Amino acid sequence: MTPDWIAVDWGTSNLRAYAMQGGRVLAEAEAPDGMGSLAAGQFEPALLRLIAPWLGPGEMQVIACGMVGARQGWAEAPYRAVPCAPVAPGQTLRVATRDPRISVQIVPGLSQAEPADVMRGEETQIAGFLARSPGFTGCLILPGTHSKHVRIAAGQVTGFRTWMTGELFALLSRQSVLRHSVAEAGDDPAAFARGLAEGLAGGVPGALFALRAESLIAGLGPVAARARLSGLLIGAEVSALPVAEDCVVIGTGALAERYITALAARGIAARAQDGAALVCEGLARARQEEHS
Amino acid sequence: MTPDWIAVDWGTSNLRAYAMQGGRVLAEAEAPDGMGSLAAGQFEPALLRLIAPWLGPGEMQVIACGMVGARQGWAEAPYRAVPCAPVAPGQTLRVATRDPRISVQIVPGLSQAEPADVMRGEETQIAGFLARSPGFTGCLILPGTHSKHVRIAAGQVTGFRTWMTGELFALLSRQSVLRHSVAEAGDDPAAFARGLAEGLAGGVPGALFALRAESLIAGLGPVAARARLSGLLIGAEVSALPVAEDCVVIGTGALAERYITALAARGIAARAQDGAALVCEGLARARQEEHS
Repeated sequence: MTPDWIAVDWGTSNLRAYAMQGGRVLAEAEAPDGMGSLAAGQFEPALLRLIAPWLGPGEMQVIACGMVGARQGWAEAPYRAVPCAPVAPGQTLRVATRDPRISVQIVPGLSQAEPADVMRGEETQIAGFLARSPGFTGCLILPGTHSKHVRIAAGQVTGFRTWMTGELFALLSRQSVLRHSVAEAGDDPAAFARGLAEGLAGGVPGALFALRAESLIAGLGPVAARARLSGLLIGAEVSALPVAEDCVVIGTGALAERYITALAARGIAARAQDGAALVCEGLARARQEEHS
Repeated sequence: MTPDWIAVDWGTSNLRAYAMQGGRVLAEAEAPDGMGSLAAGQFEPALLRLIAPWLGPGEMQVIACGMVGARQGWAEAPYRAVPCAPVAPGQTLRVATRDPRISVQIVPGLSQAEPADVMRGEETQIAGFLARSPGFTGCLILPGTHSKHVRIAAGQVTGFRTWMTGELFALLSRQSVLRHSVAEAGDDPAAFARGLAEGLAGGVPGALFALRAESLIAGLGPVAARARLSGLLIGAEVSALPVAEDCVVIGTGALAERYITALAARGIAARAQDGAALVCEGLARARQEEHS
């Protein structure tokens, strides 16, 4: 089977491509050629290295989302301002390519004027979510390096907020004085719950150094310290959410579970939805709308 | 003039020594041989390199404070638990040396059980402050990598709290995504005031990513972003202080001024006091008390 288009999720650290037939994934491929590691002029070769096996004699449509559309990316796709649908007809940026076998379009990210905020890539996951749940009203949580809280109504993104939770966790656990006290892996639900309570109560950043002090004088173990730090930061993040909203966490595994636990502690009964397939569905939607 | 003792301020990054005659500084010397860069066995040679010109035929008394007394330092000087005087008679740790020309003692740091906290070095500055202002009751603020808020009553440290403000500022401004938007130097009082208001209102960590977004979509300049980040973090820190306390910031220059401004925004009329001489005065006090 030959793909009729290629979906590309191109973030800061990774490049992922999917050979698509309509909405079906025929094959996928991944390379560590994220936007952050590529200079101008290296984007097209990186893409071709990954997708060459899927190309035929004709022109292949490639639709990409993520940091590839940032100012430091392949080409800057100007943000679309909310409130708006997460992806919209005719709003992709067509990129000039040297190789005639590909035609590349980039889905633009979203911006919000006040408070200032931006996203690139998540809008496509959101479009994939809304393709499945068109009537959804409430809040989507997309955990990660830069966690997003996205309010949805009537098929539109009405507002959003970015939390640097994942990046703060990485910096604090690996590069701050806390690195001496925090394990590289492991979980401790009771310690997570304690951190969560402190974070929900507004304890960040004031409660951070206590992790170091407790490990020095009160026997706090490194796995417990790791879980407490995670709880503190996720607690601070979810403390800002209104309780009333219907809430879905986009993700799976331990991190999504931690967010579900944190939201429950905040009084919000959230459910998780696997986000893996949503990017392709969102890109398929951008393609349909482009061609409709 | 020959010194009759040597005062040593030995932190994580630097080693500073002062040739003393009673309470008077005759000479000073500095080296980048902080505790963080020395392995076991390298402390005595590093000290001797710095103070050799001041040594005579007899035994020289050396009194040191700071991270040199940490577990990874020259020798671990167990913490003294608050409430207690910042330095106390007979409480220094004597370190074994190979060179008979020196006799080295380390001033122990302080610990607090609940909430867990520790300090090493600041207790000596505090003792220096109290030598000058023995009747002080209130709060001392010692800004820095790990900023300390120290409550003082009746000549004792009754409690304290550490904020990772300086370290968070360094990590966020140099190593997080904000590095693309934050200048390496410069000040902007209006932007600082805005960050301060957000920080005082509990905006950290939720307001951090907006610095990146505003620089991308709203023309926030890198110097303004730097000042806003500083205001955010210092605002979060001083938001925790009770308004009623008499408050002294130990320090000089731009950082001390920022804290004075932040405290004023919190409704606290604080004054600054130069901390440069306080370590020697505190070490002199540890020495006197040791020998009294």
